[in-house]
Amino acid sequence: MANIQSSNGDWFKVTSVILNLFLLFFSFVGANWKLSWSEKAAAEAEAVASVSCSGHGRVYLDSLLLDGNPICECNTCFSGPDCSQFIAGCDANVNSGDPLFLEPFWMQHAASSALLVAGWHRMSYSFSDGSYMSQQLEKRIRKVHEIVGNANTTGRFIVFGSGSILLLNAAVYALSLDNSSSPAGVVASIPYYPAYKEQTNFFRSLDYRFIGDTSMWENTSDVKTNVIEFVTSPNNPDAQLKKAVLQGPFVKTIYDHAYYWPHFTAIPAPADEDLMIFTLSKLTGHAGSRFGWALIKNETVYQRMLQYTRENSFGVSRDTQLRALKLLEVVLEGEGKEIFDFGYKTMKDRWEKLSKILSVSKRFSIQQIAPRYCTYFQQVRGPSPAYAWFKCEREENKDCYAVLSAAGITGRDGNLFGAGSGYVRLSLIRTQDDFDLMLQKMETLVSGEDGIETMRRRQSTFRQF
Amino acid sequence: MANIQSSNGDWFKVTSVILNLFLLFFSFVGANWKLSWSEKAAAEAEAVASVSCSGHGRVYLDSLLLDGNPICECNTCFSGPDCSQFIAGCDANVNSGDPLFLEPFWMQHAASSALLVAGWHRMSYSFSDGSYMSQQLEKRIRKVHEIVGNANTTGRFIVFGSGSILLLNAAVYALSLDNSSSPAGVVASIPYYPAYKEQTNFFRSLDYRFIGDTSMWENTSDVKTNVIEFVTSPNNPDAQLKKAVLQGPFVKTIYDHAYYWPHFTAIPAPADEDLMIFTLSKLTGHAGSRFGWALIKNETVYQRMLQYTRENSFGVSRDTQLRALKLLEVVLEGEGKEIFDFGYKTMKDRWEKLSKILSVSKRFSIQQIAPRYCTYFQQVRGPSPAYAWFKCEREENKDCYAVLSAAGITGRDGNLFGAGSGYVRLSLIRTQDDFDLMLQKMETLVSGEDGIETMRRRQSTFRQF
Repeated sequence: MANIQSSNGDWFKVTSVILNLFLLFFSFVGANWKLSWSEKAAAEAEAVASVSCSGHGRVYLDSLLLDGNPICECNTCFSGPDCSQFIAGCDANVNSGDPLFLEPFWMQHAASSALLVAGWHRMSYSFSDGSYMSQQLEKRIRKVHEIVGNANTTGRFIVFGSGSILLLNAAVYALSLDNSSSPAGVVASIPYYPAYKEQTNFFRSLDYRFIGDTSMWENTSDVKTNVIEFVTSPNNPDAQLKKAVLQGPFVKTIYDHAYYWPHFTAIPAPADEDLMIFTLSKLTGHAGSRFGWALIKNETVYQRMLQYTRENSFGVSRDTQLRALKLLEVVLEGEGKEIFDFGYKTMKDRWEKLSKILSVSKRFSIQQIAPRYCTYFQQVRGPSPAYAWFKCEREENKDCYAVLSAAGITGRDGNLFGAGSGYVRLSLIRTQDDFDLMLQKMETLVSGEDGIETMRRRQSTFRQF
Repeated sequence: MANIQSSNGDWFKVTSVILNLFLLFFSFVGANWKLSWSEKAAAEAEAVASVSCSGHGRVYLDSLLLDGNPICECNTCFSGPDCSQFIAGCDANVNSGDPLFLEPFWMQHAASSALLVAGWHRMSYSFSDGSYMSQQLEKRIRKVHEIVGNANTTGRFIVFGSGSILLLNAAVYALSLDNSSSPAGVVASIPYYPAYKEQTNFFRSLDYRFIGDTSMWENTSDVKTNVIEFVTSPNNPDAQLKKAVLQGPFVKTIYDHAYYWPHFTAIPAPADEDLMIFTLSKLTGHAGSRFGWALIKNETVYQRMLQYTRENSFGVSRDTQLRALKLLEVVLEGEGKEIFDFGYKTMKDRWEKLSKILSVSKRFSIQQIAPRYCTYFQQVRGPSPAYAWFKCEREENKDCYAVLSAAGITGRDGNLFGAGSGYVRLSLIRTQDDFDLMLQKMETLVSGEDGIETMRRRQSTFRQF
């Protein structure tokens, strides 16, 4: 018995020593070998991420501090230290195209999308090939287009820009540089994304100027000056798939495909144009990262656009390029299935809810989008546009923006899109809070219509008595 | 004895159990609680950082891969899988102003400068105040100027840009927008940073054009058109502290203070001009991050520059702004002592070594910089410029760039700075490898001069016999 006890004691000692050594190794050798200088940054990020903002806000590493603690940044219409207080009477903000509908996706993919940037990461102006562009990122971009099937990258050069907005002007610059005594005219079809006009005019170039709606030039066969046509497909604001209107030796076309992703539209076929522009903002939702790219067939145009990005800012921030690479790696997981499923379902759900409310309205309408076969999802799919192109149908509501404002909904005035005050763009890609509040206000607005109101009043009277 | 043994055994058991529990907690509870979703990213960054490139290169997270492993990116003139092979006959590259002299500083400060970016970090276009600029970063920038004493930020607005290069053009744009029938003329004093001319001409604006050397306009009292003068202080390429040359109601001035940091110059007093431009590239060495800022007194000019950055690219990447914040936090440690000591010592050492070699030359010279009292270091300090402004003194060496090229040194041709072919700019802020190789080639070049060569030959003959 004593022997057995003694034997048990020795066994215990030996196993304890082995276990201790193993754990010591794991704790102080293993763990430290795995993480040393990066640990503080990782812990900081997790601490910040763990702050609760009640699902109506979030804290960032660079949020403002109060008594040394970062303050919650609340969604519109929410306030308080933890964003839990709804601001009564607050207007629904569906103005800008802030793509925060994808924020929950990235929170759900925290581990795969996290990125640790070392202090000495890419301090140089140039990559090792002397360029300002990451070859790895270029490869991932081509791969993303390949798996989605939304653009043919074969035989195309790629130029990166600080958001697609920069590339729009770079493209206008590049296409306007042909021997011509007069400046090139830039056109877009109404309704068009306001930046085309605003930006083209803003830079006051000798070589180009905005000359209005495409249709004004459609039958002008005697145009001798260069014309640059912006084609946005799907269109911002109305989500229609578009083709170039103008043709001929003096016409050049810039295809803005910001929204040509399965979140927002069926993909009938790969886009195959000479100059196509895309943006991370509407693919992954990272508008704040300011990253876009252009696919360019013509080498001279490519070289000019590249030079534009060089003269403008020596290319895109290498920090941004690294982040875009990490995000696209997550996009590529499962051939995009996760992000596009999430994106499509979210947008489809929002569109259906808004459509349902408006289906009973006689005063208001939104655009019609037919179901269409999508080569990416390999099925016919319904609409899921980024924006509702909202129309006030009645003459007395000709200032549609004011009508919505009075109902507590802040959209974007149709005048900015060249379409007149009868229209308002409603952004459907913002936070769920923004969308939900807009939906609620819209329901109230629509239910206040003549017939609907009368019906509701009768029901209400019936219930009261 | 048995009791003592038994007592010892129990003690051993109890301590073992406690130790095991502690270690288990630390390993599997403690460590996991501290880090979860961020751990993979941190481990990836450390794995990449641990790859050895023999001190002549480094691996980045977005380096190209070979068989799944990232490839070393070698310094100029080094090659091989671990950058250990010197490329015989390779020219010293001292052309661009790549500020890699600070790379070792950041490697030494790995823990404090590491940054973990969450996948959902700042996806929105705007910060919570609706702007495109981080308030935290703005505060840090003002603090850095305060501790360094190199600029008065009081009563100044701040605009961020994707590198100071973008802000140069934004400033020209903003200052040229006055009611005038003719475009504003942009001038700079020879020798000047080539981008002023190149960029101003490149964008082909209706409102401004480059009209040459400032001195051509100095005595033209009848100038009725607006003139915008670039003043670079310390000057690129020759490191002189400069003041505006032109005065008068039609003159506006842009101060480019990219190099006005203790690394490169004594700080006699805080700069106090109406429009001053700075860049992260030459403060922390992160040229690749593309971040600069302007301090602006006049509100209208500020608003115009802000609008320029908005029309250009909706502001600076939020990823870059976060990184700049982290880096400036490290700069601020110990009131800047660590980074400025490191920077000044490195640059001073390089300058002294080059000066010593050239001190015996009759063919070549570099600029003279007098010692000066520095309010930051609170002492008189010697020169430590970013560039050597190298002059070929003899008529037969009038193509100085070719003379240096033949000696295996690639500088930047003085013609680009408006100074003629008798000058070449040598960058002293690149990697230690680049500098060391240039020094070696310079020594050979100088020792080959008539008198020096004869002297060396005699010594050589004496030694041989």
